[in-house]
Amino acid sequence: MRENVFSILENKSDSLISKSYNLLMLVTIFLSIVPLMFKEHLLMFTVFEYVTTAVFCMDYILRWVTADFKLGKGKASFVLYPLTIMAIVDLLCILPTFFMMNSGLKLLKIARMGRLLRVFKVIRYSKNIAILTNVMKEQREALLLVIVLATGYILFTALLMFTVEPTTFDTFFDALYWATISLTTVGYGDIFAVSTLGKLITMVSSVLGIAIVALPAGIITAGYMNEIMKNQ
Amino acid sequence: MRENVFSILENKSDSLISKSYNLLMLVTIFLSIVPLMFKEHLLMFTVFEYVTTAVFCMDYILRWVTADFKLGKGKASFVLYPLTIMAIVDLLCILPTFFMMNSGLKLLKIARMGRLLRVFKVIRYSKNIAILTNVMKEQREALLLVIVLATGYILFTALLMFTVEPTTFDTFFDALYWATISLTTVGYGDIFAVSTLGKLITMVSSVLGIAIVALPAGIITAGYMNEIMKNQ
Amino acid sequence: MRENVFSILENKSDSLISKSYNLLMLVTIFLSIVPLMFKEHLLMFTVFEYVTTAVFCMDYILRWVTADFKLGKGKASFVLYPLTIMAIVDLLCILPTFFMMNSGLKLLKIARMGRLLRVFKVIRYSKNIAILTNVMKEQREALLLVIVLATGYILFTALLMFTVEPTTFDTFFDALYWATISLTTVGYGDIFAVSTLGKLITMVSSVLGIAIVALPAGIITAGYMNEIMKNQ
Amino acid sequence: MRENVFSILENKSDSLISKSYNLLMLVTIFLSIVPLMFKEHLLMFTVFEYVTTAVFCMDYILRWVTADFKLGKGKASFVLYPLTIMAIVDLLCILPTFFMMNSGLKLLKIARMGRLLRVFKVIRYSKNIAILTNVMKEQREALLLVIVLATGYILFTALLMFTVEPTTFDTFFDALYWATISLTTVGYGDIFAVSTLGKLITMVSSVLGIAIVALPAGIITAGYMNEIMKNQ
Repeated sequence: MRENVFSILENKSDSLISKSYNLLMLVTIFLSIVPLMFKEHLLMFTVFEYVTTAVFCMDYILRWVTADFKLGKGKASFVLYPLTIMAIVDLLCILPTFFMMNSGLKLLKIARMGRLLRVFKVIRYSKNIAILTNVMKEQREALLLVIVLATGYILFTALLMFTVEPTTFDTFFDALYWATISLTTVGYGDIFAVSTLGKLITMVSSVLGIAIVALPAGIITAGYMNEIMKNQ
Repeated sequence: MRENVFSILENKSDSLISKSYNLLMLVTIFLSIVPLMFKEHLLMFTVFEYVTTAVFCMDYILRWVTADFKLGKGKASFVLYPLTIMAIVDLLCILPTFFMMNSGLKLLKIARMGRLLRVFKVIRYSKNIAILTNVMKEQREALLLVIVLATGYILFTALLMFTVEPTTFDTFFDALYWATISLTTVGYGDIFAVSTLGKLITMVSSVLGIAIVALPAGIITAGYMNEIMKNQ
Repeated sequence: MRENVFSILENKSDSLISKSYNLLMLVTIFLSIVPLMFKEHLLMFTVFEYVTTAVFCMDYILRWVTADFKLGKGKASFVLYPLTIMAIVDLLCILPTFFMMNSGLKLLKIARMGRLLRVFKVIRYSKNIAILTNVMKEQREALLLVIVLATGYILFTALLMFTVEPTTFDTFFDALYWATISLTTVGYGDIFAVSTLGKLITMVSSVLGIAIVALPAGIITAGYMNEIMKNQ
Repeated sequence: MRENVFSILENKSDSLISKSYNLLMLVTIFLSIVPLMFKEHLLMFTVFEYVTTAVFCMDYILRWVTADFKLGKGKASFVLYPLTIMAIVDLLCILPTFFMMNSGLKLLKIARMGRLLRVFKVIRYSKNIAILTNVMKEQREALLLVIVLATGYILFTALLMFTVEPTTFDTFFDALYWATISLTTVGYGDIFAVSTLGKLITMVSSVLGIAIVALPAGIITAGYMNEIMKNQ
């Protein structure tokens, strides 16, 4: 009987019950997130909160009880299971309700979106997801290098600007924020250089920034082409 | 005689009459859109409205009458034709005039731009359009995946921001709007984070956003290169 | 003697005189543009104006006199030469001075930057310029297609927005301006949607806009790779 | 003994002492930059300043004393060493402390970030850094060409805008700043065209700007793909 429950949870049997369970979880996740999208606190939301938490609790217990099928380590599985990443995420989804209405924990509820990953996991991976994941894996080092480069560049520009125009930025963090918003070419316009030297730094760093933005695009494209060619 | 009309409508004969008819339709579409570009309501525009609607009506009837040549299903064609997508678009072009000056229907008039597609269809496809269409078709799944990723990312960032900075956003929709404008690096600057935590989320999501913008670029480039190579 | 002058003008001989002449022209172009960079009208600028115009006149006459070597059509060359594009640009550089201080003609002076093209022409083309020019030529049709697509998209979005939010935009031109600034992700923030429907249109069109921006990047990259492979 | 010091400095021996020395330098660089991130002048920062300068001085002397191992030119090495680029950067890191609290020299302290390059140098280069460096080297000429094109384009647009809308820009530098911020699609919105002609120029140059931004992306991607293929 426990094996049946496990195969439903993990969508092994591909049966109607399994599919219904997945749909139930999807709806539950959605209902648990909806209250976060409103400022008002409707009575309905309290109901949502209790119902969805109950479902999450049931799911948590069912998964724990069938942990030996999942981890395949006999009795030890029941001890190890609560320490796995997905189990911790599941616990985070339940906890906020027990420490009710503590606004600091409201943020924790967003962890419920993490549960969506498990739902997606169930859907059979298409060839394209596999290709994109492969590209990311193989170009991992190159992409990391670009992130290090970009971070160094943001730090340097922020430091330069903060020294040149201390009046524009309240704290160094503001300079970092400005540098990031400029490098990524978002440019809200809430903070910008006003002095001539500051504008000059902005110009040089914007132009150089294009090259840094072009790098990840180039790496991903090249990696993607490589994968396509291999598959042919 | 009906066959002649059909060959003119569909530019089968490539004759002068057929070309003139296409030009007439192009001018009619243009004239029917012009009033939308002005806030004032000139008398001339009412004339435009009646004349262009008359031409559209004539075109609609002519196409309906020759529907059997188009669909090739005998008498049934005349029943099925008004249900085809292009016939519905054509009807939408005529309707607003009959429910005159109802501003809610003003929006429907933009459907007339959809008629341009038929005019473009007539122009013989160049090799390049075929290539670009092919790229889109073959990379359809990958592009869809990127859209799902981007949507999930926008939803997540919006939810996070709305929880962290409820005072900046009136509704959750505003948070979604902010997230989209930031991810696409448009950054109007009408809404932006003001708290330190909000700015931090902005920074992280802007940098990650570049990767998501780089993905479709990479996919299209790789697909396009692939097509060029096949054609050689 | 006229042949010598021609070889100097066209840098055929690669001699010191020829190089000096090119340098002289470069300095003259620079001096003729400098006054455009200032709002004040210094006396020095009037001197610049007269001196540079004199040099441009001399250059114009010299080129006209040696037109037969350039065009190689005997006596007819002298009649045809003033009608060539570069000769018209040269004339536009001189004219504003003769209709002095007419601010409407001030704009014409910018044509002097067009003369820089001739100076660049003299510098021997590197392999890279040849490759880039080739890419542009071969992908000409595809790039044109993208421009048509982008223009249609801008027109459609502008029309939609102008109908939905007539209060935000004074004229249809403003809507076109907004659509262009949004599609290119510049996003100054001087005009933006305020209604919910308007914001929704902004979101959809921003996301679609990324694909349209990605197209030229993809086309250029694919073309460039193709050229590199051919050269190997 | 001097040879031992040199192998520690240059991380030749890969020993624990060498690694500790590198870590010490990393911490010192970080501590020397921290005060730049604050507007307040804490007493602690003065301590940081003296301690880090002492460490930098010691490092400078140790490197000078072992210069013959580094440059391999015997006694002449000791004369030549202070003239090498890295030695000048090292000197710039120390100097500001001796001319204490002169705000003009505060900017010089940022040179200390340049020291990070030496620390990075020590870390063994990954294959990816080598590839990226190769791409940059081989496409050097093409990238330079793009920078020349972009600069010419920025100059031209700025000149055009400054002539058309002199009231929007205080100086020509402001027009250059506006053109750069627009071409790179940052678009802060602190300066923008207000006249119809100005807006028209903005629209045309934004659309053309996309092509110029697409060029470096294309070049880097093509170069990167080329490198990947060579390595296979």
